[in-house]
Amino acid sequence: MSNFYHVDGELVPSDQATVHVEDRGFMYGDGAFETLRAYGGDVFRWEAHAARLADSCESLGLDHGLDTVELRERVDETLAGNELQEAYLKLSITRGRQPGKLNPDPDVDPTVVVYASPLPQGGTAGEQSVWDSPATIQTVDTRRIPDEAVPARAKTHNYLNEILARVELRGTAADEALMLNLDGHVAEAATSNVFFVHDNALRTPRLHGSVLPGITRETVLDIADREGIPVETGQYEPARLRDADEVFLTNSTWELRPVDSVDGKTIGDGTPEGPMTRLLSRLYDQRIDRLHY
Amino acid sequence: MSNFYHVDGELVPSDQATVHVEDRGFMYGDGAFETLRAYGGDVFRWEAHAARLADSCESLGLDHGLDTVELRERVDETLAGNELQEAYLKLSITRGRQPGKLNPDPDVDPTVVVYASPLPQGGTAGEQSVWDSPATIQTVDTRRIPDEAVPARAKTHNYLNEILARVELRGTAADEALMLNLDGHVAEAATSNVFFVHDNALRTPRLHGSVLPGITRETVLDIADREGIPVETGQYEPARLRDADEVFLTNSTWELRPVDSVDGKTIGDGTPEGPMTRLLSRLYDQRIDRLHY
Repeated sequence: MSNFYHVDGELVPSDQATVHVEDRGFMYGDGAFETLRAYGGDVFRWEAHAARLADSCESLGLDHGLDTVELRERVDETLAGNELQEAYLKLSITRGRQPGKLNPDPDVDPTVVVYASPLPQGGTAGEQSVWDSPATIQTVDTRRIPDEAVPARAKTHNYLNEILARVELRGTAADEALMLNLDGHVAEAATSNVFFVHDNALRTPRLHGSVLPGITRETVLDIADREGIPVETGQYEPARLRDADEVFLTNSTWELRPVDSVDGKTIGDGTPEGPMTRLLSRLYDQRIDRLHY
Repeated sequence: MSNFYHVDGELVPSDQATVHVEDRGFMYGDGAFETLRAYGGDVFRWEAHAARLADSCESLGLDHGLDTVELRERVDETLAGNELQEAYLKLSITRGRQPGKLNPDPDVDPTVVVYASPLPQGGTAGEQSVWDSPATIQTVDTRRIPDEAVPARAKTHNYLNEILARVELRGTAADEALMLNLDGHVAEAATSNVFFVHDNALRTPRLHGSVLPGITRETVLDIADREGIPVETGQYEPARLRDADEVFLTNSTWELRPVDSVDGKTIGDGTPEGPMTRLLSRLYDQRIDRLHY
């Protein structure tokens, strides 16, 4: 936790940062969010995050009336107020208070919260990784919510699907849950997109099928494409991951995180990070360095 | 809104009732709730609501450590503090603050909120109905979340599925959304269970199939059974509702609410309330009267 959070347009001491119990974010999880990283005091891929946040809000019918510049100012004020250069940030927008009705009123007085905490860069310039060790992942019974019920492109405060997946890991050695679609294909992990390497090609589940369009996922695909690495997006049975040469996870916080085992089966030759994962991680770090340092 | 809400064990002025922005209820909708009615100062079917709340919490792996007596005391304090006899109440329990991690810690310091507002009885003793007019319902594209993703028996703060259904009603004459399962059968309405009458039998979707086990639904089924009315629970295409003799909705707030049209088609002979709906409403009111007045 940092000293200050940004709530409804103002920096407030983080231990006093509250919302009303009638906020629709609290009552219904009726809001959208983005997880951001700041490197060298600057938000990585802000435009992409802002665009996805707009997309999430649009899919909820939530017209919050704030433009991207105003949102960016609040994020920057949060970084400055906490004197943070290297940070984890979460930007949330809820539909605010509309007491006495479930039907969302189109006229919204949104609640905007910016959370921040220090997080060192995990890349070439970093001294410390954001994860302690490679991930151990386990396929869980909880299936991803299908698009027909809640659009996968919306990153929202309705996070029980992912939490239920993590609850299933209690008592296992796994620290990330692998989630399948209703049709039994791999969708994503609870808080990350999943990639695997087979026959020297990089493979990841296609977006059509309850998969969040991760910004880090997109960055990695772009890097691989520019590097001439063969890329395939498709539908995969979980066995494909267990039999893969390499598996890694991506999200804004972890960047690229190698996976050492899937459903109890060691991946590849058992080294913590295969060659493709190592290459892509370095290229990802170089991109951050080029943009921010 | 009443003068006081009950937050974390204390009555607080409702305009100052807040939760921390790190509360998992706000960040993830990670909590369960019950909607309650008080008649004559006493909660209707408290034991049934308490049991369902326990069931919701169990399905979330949320061991809040509070017993039913303590929860009831907080509800009663809220009624007494607001000098309410006839009231709408909402009792929420979230997983509280567990900063810095998505994985729910089994050791929970829950956040408990009791909301209240005055609501006159809609029954035989009431002067005023809780709804202004029969419901107009419309089948929406948003499908109910399947059990495999989030258990339907859990009544939680993840309410976007229902909100998205209501958003679809913008620009239509409908005021309640009829939601189907992924297989195209009727599940329930956004905030209510649905019943229809055909061939003098009362029919409602079976619970197996993403249907919340509504307390009012259960009460109505019990009343019908005791009255000797034929009851069927099953799987129904939405056309069955459009062609029904009578359709009504149930929830704790509305009690029984007649439906005057489904997907633009007038139900029955166009009178606001068919004979079976009227009979069941009276028997429901009598049960309230017998228990609470």
